Amino acid sequence: MSELLNGQRRSLMCGDVSTEHIGKELTLMGWVHRRRDLGGLIFLQLRDRSGIVQIVFDTDVCAKSLLEKASTIKLEYVISVSGKVRRRVGNNVNPNMKTGEVELVAEDLKILSEADTTPFSIGDDGANEALRLKYRYLDLRRPDLQQNLVVRSKIYQITRNYLTENGFIEVETPMLGKSTPEGARDYLVPSRIRKGSFYALPQSPQLYKQLLMIGGIDRYFQIAKCFRDEDLRANRQPEFTQIDLEMSFVDQEEEVMTLTEGLLVEMFKKIRGVDLPEHFLRLPWTECMDRFGSDKPDLRFGMEIQNLDDTVKDSAFAVFSNALKQGGTVRAIVLKQGADKLSRKELDKLAEFVKTYKAKGLAWYGLGKEGTKCSFAKAVSEEELHSIAKALSMEQGDIAFFVASDWQTAVVSLGALRCHLASKFELYCEGDFACLWVVDFPLFEYSEEEGRFVAMHHPFTSPKNEDLQYMKTDPARVRAKAYDVVINGDEMGGGSMRIYNRDVQKLMFETLGFSDEQIADRFGFFVDAFKYGTPPHGGLALGLDRLVMVLTGSTNIKDVIAFPKMQNASDMMSDAPSPVEDKQLKELSILCEEHDD
Amino acid sequence: MSELLNGQRRSLMCGDVSTEHIGKELTLMGWVHRRRDLGGLIFLQLRDRSGIVQIVFDTDVCAKSLLEKASTIKLEYVISVSGKVRRRVGNNVNPNMKTGEVELVAEDLKILSEADTTPFSIGDDGANEALRLKYRYLDLRRPDLQQNLVVRSKIYQITRNYLTENGFIEVETPMLGKSTPEGARDYLVPSRIRKGSFYALPQSPQLYKQLLMIGGIDRYFQIAKCFRDEDLRANRQPEFTQIDLEMSFVDQEEEVMTLTEGLLVEMFKKIRGVDLPEHFLRLPWTECMDRFGSDKPDLRFGMEIQNLDDTVKDSAFAVFSNALKQGGTVRAIVLKQGADKLSRKELDKLAEFVKTYKAKGLAWYGLGKEGTKCSFAKAVSEEELHSIAKALSMEQGDIAFFVASDWQTAVVSLGALRCHLASKFELYCEGDFACLWVVDFPLFEYSEEEGRFVAMHHPFTSPKNEDLQYMKTDPARVRAKAYDVVINGDEMGGGSMRIYNRDVQKLMFETLGFSDEQIADRFGFFVDAFKYGTPPHGGLALGLDRLVMVLTGSTNIKDVIAFPKMQNASDMMSDAPSPVEDKQLKELSILCEEHDD
Repeated sequence: MSELLNGQRRSLMCGDVSTEHIGKELTLMGWVHRRRDLGGLIFLQLRDRSGIVQIVFDTDVCAKSLLEKASTIKLEYVISVSGKVRRRVGNNVNPNMKTGEVELVAEDLKILSEADTTPFSIGDDGANEALRLKYRYLDLRRPDLQQNLVVRSKIYQITRNYLTENGFIEVETPMLGKSTPEGARDYLVPSRIRKGSFYALPQSPQLYKQLLMIGGIDRYFQIAKCFRDEDLRANRQPEFTQIDLEMSFVDQEEEVMTLTEGLLVEMFKKIRGVDLPEHFLRLPWTECMDRFGSDKPDLRFGMEIQNLDDTVKDSAFAVFSNALKQGGTVRAIVLKQGADKLSRKELDKLAEFVKTYKAKGLAWYGLGKEGTKCSFAKAVSEEELHSIAKALSMEQGDIAFFVASDWQTAVVSLGALRCHLASKFELYCEGDFACLWVVDFPLFEYSEEEGRFVAMHHPFTSPKNEDLQYMKTDPARVRAKAYDVVINGDEMGGGSMRIYNRDVQKLMFETLGFSDEQIADRFGFFVDAFKYGTPPHGGLALGLDRLVMVLTGSTNIKDVIAFPKMQNASDMMSDAPSPVEDKQLKELSILCEEHDD
Repeated sequence: MSELLNGQRRSLMCGDVSTEHIGKELTLMGWVHRRRDLGGLIFLQLRDRSGIVQIVFDTDVCAKSLLEKASTIKLEYVISVSGKVRRRVGNNVNPNMKTGEVELVAEDLKILSEADTTPFSIGDDGANEALRLKYRYLDLRRPDLQQNLVVRSKIYQITRNYLTENGFIEVETPMLGKSTPEGARDYLVPSRIRKGSFYALPQSPQLYKQLLMIGGIDRYFQIAKCFRDEDLRANRQPEFTQIDLEMSFVDQEEEVMTLTEGLLVEMFKKIRGVDLPEHFLRLPWTECMDRFGSDKPDLRFGMEIQNLDDTVKDSAFAVFSNALKQGGTVRAIVLKQGADKLSRKELDKLAEFVKTYKAKGLAWYGLGKEGTKCSFAKAVSEEELHSIAKALSMEQGDIAFFVASDWQTAVVSLGALRCHLASKFELYCEGDFACLWVVDFPLFEYSEEEGRFVAMHHPFTSPKNEDLQYMKTDPARVRAKAYDVVINGDEMGGGSMRIYNRDVQKLMFETLGFSDEQIADRFGFFVDAFKYGTPPHGGLALGLDRLVMVLTGSTNIKDVIAFPKMQNASDMMSDAPSPVEDKQLKELSILCEEHDD
């Protein structure tokens, strides 16, 4: 039978008991984490959010009845124990435990809540994930998961305090907004009052934050829930969280980037004790693609993509020379000291790997201990190989990989291979952090699917002043005042300076191929807003879930969210989404179509 | 033609210019708030979030071309002006303006954004509300609205810092949850993947926060968006914000109340400079109803409801004596010095007023300058009137109002009349704050509509330990460990200690008349969670929108929300909710029923 607490108070949390409490009477409360029954002596480990402390029931000290009561305790019972703290001696000291030098000698015990056998052992992160998600409230008892949520909470507070100190105001924007077909798929919310109409949950507070600038709020931020109804890739969630900000009376990317650097520096210092550089590297998008084959390069390691065009332009190896003749390029990366680490079979696998990035093949050339090995040795002279090695600054033991194709395919496939090899050969440490800004993105990208230019970021991104002249004649050439912040090869967020000039906005929509009617229909009230005095402004959004992952070293997004959803966007615990009562649908005047599943 | 900012930076914000800047070169940016053109001299008021500063274009100082450019400026243009600050002299000094002692003498000007004539004058809060909501981004330029958002942001930060300092962790709970028919109507979100199934937007994070306690998070808080699809009364919004918290290892109301008092004391001090009492009055619900006829009494004034049963039990006035004979009661309130302030016509109106609260009538008796006046004078003796006046401690000039009926009707109608009179005769000052806790609520209330007891708060509220014995036999008698915090007659929030004992929870559901199937269907996974060790816990939610209203002295909830909705839950600005594309509905496998409007 469980007992009632009846106003009893705990003295402090389990993990906070220390040698300074020796001799003191304390009341501790928590979950029973481990138990050992040695007859006249029972040891319990008592756990709460702060840690674990040892409790001992000893008939030398306590009544026999108390020992008997203690012997009924099972794992995960919630108890309250009062007693005196004493120093542990001899073998009993546990140097691996924060509280390992002390224990509480129980004099009184309340069993507050009994526990059935849990469906998996608490703290076992190896148990089946679906099972752990179904009983998420039990998995949340896992100390590392709790620690992640503690870090997440600290990140919220650091962010808010930093931005508030910098003159930003936190403003909540609506969750029930208007559906705008631009972008990803919306989650819709049927209106009961306006039959046949729907709200949309926000994919981002983009429009609202710009309207706040037009409204004179000057500096806005919000830690905002955003929604995208997409088929989920790994480490994506249908609802996710962004640190969202916008500031007025600036028109240079630099001002938002500097501010953001300050925030990230503070975050990494306070959470990880790591000093990030005050000023991150800025890499123009074209250079970034050229050197790393990615717009989110991992700079924890080198292995940059090198251009071999000059060296191989007259190569006897037709794959190289033909690529160049067709207007393509030959690019290479060098894995230092990798020549003897890769078997023929592994090299073949790497060739398969780059093919998933559209490369037709992968050539390689290694300077191994037992001589050179080269996939195109038969086609070329010793001399040509030497000149390639020289061009690539290869040393004994290195191996080079080559892709010959159009520029895009060459850099992207080698960029992917670069990361693959770095991971395989552990070319970086888990505690390393390499941050950079990717800048000067193209404003547009051509969508084969839609047969038109689409906005690379979104249609409110400002072109670079000096590229305005190409908007009509050569959209592909126009660069954006846009920037992404990248840490360890992951995009942490990005933003842009916004268009504040009506004419530029109109030009933008025209280039995107929106008719006046479409503009009016989709963005009408927003475009109208620019008519009444719009300040220059720009901003950024950081992916909070992703930041927490980086800062906690988590590889699974579910480990940084209290109640995450599965890949199919369902919640194992509550079984949402679920059927609702007919009455509810009737009130909304909606019907569900017949379906088979 | 508007110009580009081209990296120019503002020196400081408009409202921050002061005498310390005299002689300094500054660049200021903002909206043109007022303009006065005196020929060779143009005065502008430049406005941003921080305030307004005067700019002067003077041909004695600037080039004629600059004056010409300045003369093209219209209201709400966004400009950047550089020049030197000088002291205003003579008549030009404006003591009503924060920056009234200085002005900027313009030497350079950029017109960053032109403005059409705005549909209403900026700052005119008298303009049509629908129009102001349609152009919310313009209405947001109104300084008092911006100030409300600044206060709101401060409240967020004060709350988070206070709770974080008290060991609370901020945790985000899901927006896409499960529909639970208990409570108000849910907003539903159709699932694309699980056809025919729906998510529900949360009415509160209640279940999740309790699961966090079961998960060992110990102390949780969140500033949470909540949703209710109800027909909106005044000052309600379909989406609203709560300061939500929960704490473990406590089972007394006192612990949550004390913590909350600390938060409110800090908030009122920092925002308003007001010292609230450290400890608010606690009033049991029954006493509260008896003395004030309300569970959210306004204690800024007295006029308590008095019981006249003993005095009038043998009254010659049949209305009084009959009420008592039928088991009812006679209650009264006294409006001090009100006898000569109310005409006969006004007294009749008051009688109509109490009828809307089900009272059959209102009797009155005043000791006016020109003699007594009494609605039941003909029925009673002079002597009886004297004894009534004595019982009510009436003095010359006072007037008493009487309702004779069942207890509920008597106290509720007089309670409403009490507030009505206090408002009419301004018995309190706008800057007064009277806070209290209402405690010892009934656990259940009987719903005539449903023919069963329903939970007065929600079905997880703990009964008082000493009342557990009446759960089965006399539910109406069971008091809850529940508490509401009331300021100036408005409920600011409330909470309760939760049931942590499985058996009590089961008893609760039984009393509410839920079948095992219904329990499993509605709360199944939640009730299951209690099986594995549940700590004693309790919490509270504060209505943030309402708090901001109190702290800013706003009477309209729309004035404390950046983008509020109309009474019909629509957004005038974006016109959400709106029809969506057929493709979107098809993907969700839902159909809209035919309708006429």
